[in-house]
Amino acid sequence: MKNIDTLHWTGDESGCLVMIDQTLLPLEFTEIECRTVEDVWEAIKMLRVRGAPAIGIAAAYGVCVGLQAAASTDEAAFFTRLDEVVDYLATSRPTAVNLFWALDRMRKKAQLLRGKAAPAAIAAALLAEARAVHEEDRQMCRAIGRLGATLLEDGQGVLTHCNAGGLATADYGTALAVFFAATEAGKTLHVYADETRPLLQGARLTAWELQQRGIDVTLICDSMAAQVMREGRVQAVVTGADRIAANGDAANKIGTYGVALLAAAHDIPFYVAAPTSTFDLATPNGDAIPIEQRNAAEITHGFGRQTAPSGVKVYNPAFDVTPARLIQAIICEKGIIRPVTPECVAEMLNLSDDAAGS
Amino acid sequence: MKNIDTLHWTGDESGCLVMIDQTLLPLEFTEIECRTVEDVWEAIKMLRVRGAPAIGIAAAYGVCVGLQAAASTDEAAFFTRLDEVVDYLATSRPTAVNLFWALDRMRKKAQLLRGKAAPAAIAAALLAEARAVHEEDRQMCRAIGRLGATLLEDGQGVLTHCNAGGLATADYGTALAVFFAATEAGKTLHVYADETRPLLQGARLTAWELQQRGIDVTLICDSMAAQVMREGRVQAVVTGADRIAANGDAANKIGTYGVALLAAAHDIPFYVAAPTSTFDLATPNGDAIPIEQRNAAEITHGFGRQTAPSGVKVYNPAFDVTPARLIQAIICEKGIIRPVTPECVAEMLNLSDDAAGS
Repeated sequence: MKNIDTLHWTGDESGCLVMIDQTLLPLEFTEIECRTVEDVWEAIKMLRVRGAPAIGIAAAYGVCVGLQAAASTDEAAFFTRLDEVVDYLATSRPTAVNLFWALDRMRKKAQLLRGKAAPAAIAAALLAEARAVHEEDRQMCRAIGRLGATLLEDGQGVLTHCNAGGLATADYGTALAVFFAATEAGKTLHVYADETRPLLQGARLTAWELQQRGIDVTLICDSMAAQVMREGRVQAVVTGADRIAANGDAANKIGTYGVALLAAAHDIPFYVAAPTSTFDLATPNGDAIPIEQRNAAEITHGFGRQTAPSGVKVYNPAFDVTPARLIQAIICEKGIIRPVTPECVAEMLNLSDDAAGS
Repeated sequence: MKNIDTLHWTGDESGCLVMIDQTLLPLEFTEIECRTVEDVWEAIKMLRVRGAPAIGIAAAYGVCVGLQAAASTDEAAFFTRLDEVVDYLATSRPTAVNLFWALDRMRKKAQLLRGKAAPAAIAAALLAEARAVHEEDRQMCRAIGRLGATLLEDGQGVLTHCNAGGLATADYGTALAVFFAATEAGKTLHVYADETRPLLQGARLTAWELQQRGIDVTLICDSMAAQVMREGRVQAVVTGADRIAANGDAANKIGTYGVALLAAAHDIPFYVAAPTSTFDLATPNGDAIPIEQRNAAEITHGFGRQTAPSGVKVYNPAFDVTPARLIQAIICEKGIIRPVTPECVAEMLNLSDDAAGS
């Protein structure tokens, strides 16, 4: 199965960050080399790299790029530059939680070594730390894939919504990891990908990723999911999640809730695949998750062309919440939460990392 | 309330057929004058006029346009020309049942008068017949609107899918007729229009029609219907139908079945508005209705731009079937069928036209 390398570091400390320019997909596959921190900032800002985990990894490597020249300076200059770089990268996508998490982790790693190692050694340690962030995400994807694959059977049709794929993560995705791992385990799947209006992540990214990895994929409009289910073409639905409340209610791309209702109406299991970092235990249930409203132009001028009358009122919620009762199981890197109840969620999240896995 | 005149005849027998060029909506409102039968043929072929009833009316007027020069010839020449015109118009959209129905009606009307009236008088009678086809459709729309309006209450939110509006009929539509009539009866409605991928009839036509008639309309993506229902914004769903089986199963634009399931999950009544001519009693149930598959490019190149990877497999059913059990009532011009059972359908269809309506 062909690998899709969303982003990677090439070379040693003097190397650079290479990433797929996702804004050009699916028509053009271009990798860009980020040799300055400004390059990394621009790539995050312009959505050339997207998806919470991938943004975090890009930011971590971005710190390394930004410190290359400072590695040969003195300690004070090195740390001044570190602050500059971290503060600057933090402005690229101010709402991305993983961005701050990764930058914070890099800064802490450097602080830990301050006074104990030379700038060049700290720079080397930071590259190792970025690689660790990257590797941990890869392991998380693999664990979700391995666990989720056990829920699918050879020959099944599966449906997914939006893009919870490798492009959003280090290598494998979350929902799509389940399909990739099942395929690697020798199961043949037939994937139906909702195009996912308004921004068409399903058509542009999911269909492309599956096609690239040689998995049988059929693109449909969101409005066709019910018919595909009725015709018996789908035996499971797997989606990602952006945020999961303590009771298991899961916020994800708009349209996910509708797909979950349609799956329930056809007795098809609906699974969510998401790392434990997606859980927000401070949010008791889905009602407490605010739903971001987005620009009308995404619907009225979605593809470079106006497709609705001028001045028409538009409602454009970015997310919806699928209640836990519609979710058969949540697949995370530590294990499978089933049934989806506050108790089972708490139990899984309290598992130590050592106890987790397969 | 501003009227939208999908198509009309202007002037006397020497006049012409005027229609809105629907391919330019919603960005441009242009009326075209069809002064030759070739003009009418081209307008039907190129979807400048669309919707089964509107196509039938256009074809009936098209016969009149095509016979204008022949009105001053002898009977043999007149009837030779009639055959030419009818056969030619029949090739404009070979799958449109209303087209054949209207052409057949025009030919029969002429045959009835053969030998009894001069060509000029027959031409005049044919224009009167075309006007009758037009007027009957108008009456049908008004009756559906009047009856359907009784099902809605002041202040309600309603949702519709695709375009079952005035643009598809003589003046008022079927599903949209219900909204127009309710508004005329003094009820304020808040309409949510699904954009209706892949061809965006909801965004391009329904939103435009409602906006033109001053009705509060909000455009959403198809994937947002569930969320809109969950938020309590919608108290009824009304759609049209393309074909209804003897048991009440209704085929309509792809996505309708999904909307019906979502409505059921939120305890929202789902109504179908369609003339009795939509019923096909030779079809016992929805399983016997064939589902047309359409071109992949509608999904992959829908907005004038490629939005999916080259060569991706696509599934593009044009219609789906909503089972009768999900339909609270079918609103037709003779009355309201409720509950939707084979017996109630048969009873309504057996009603004489005189006994119908309110």
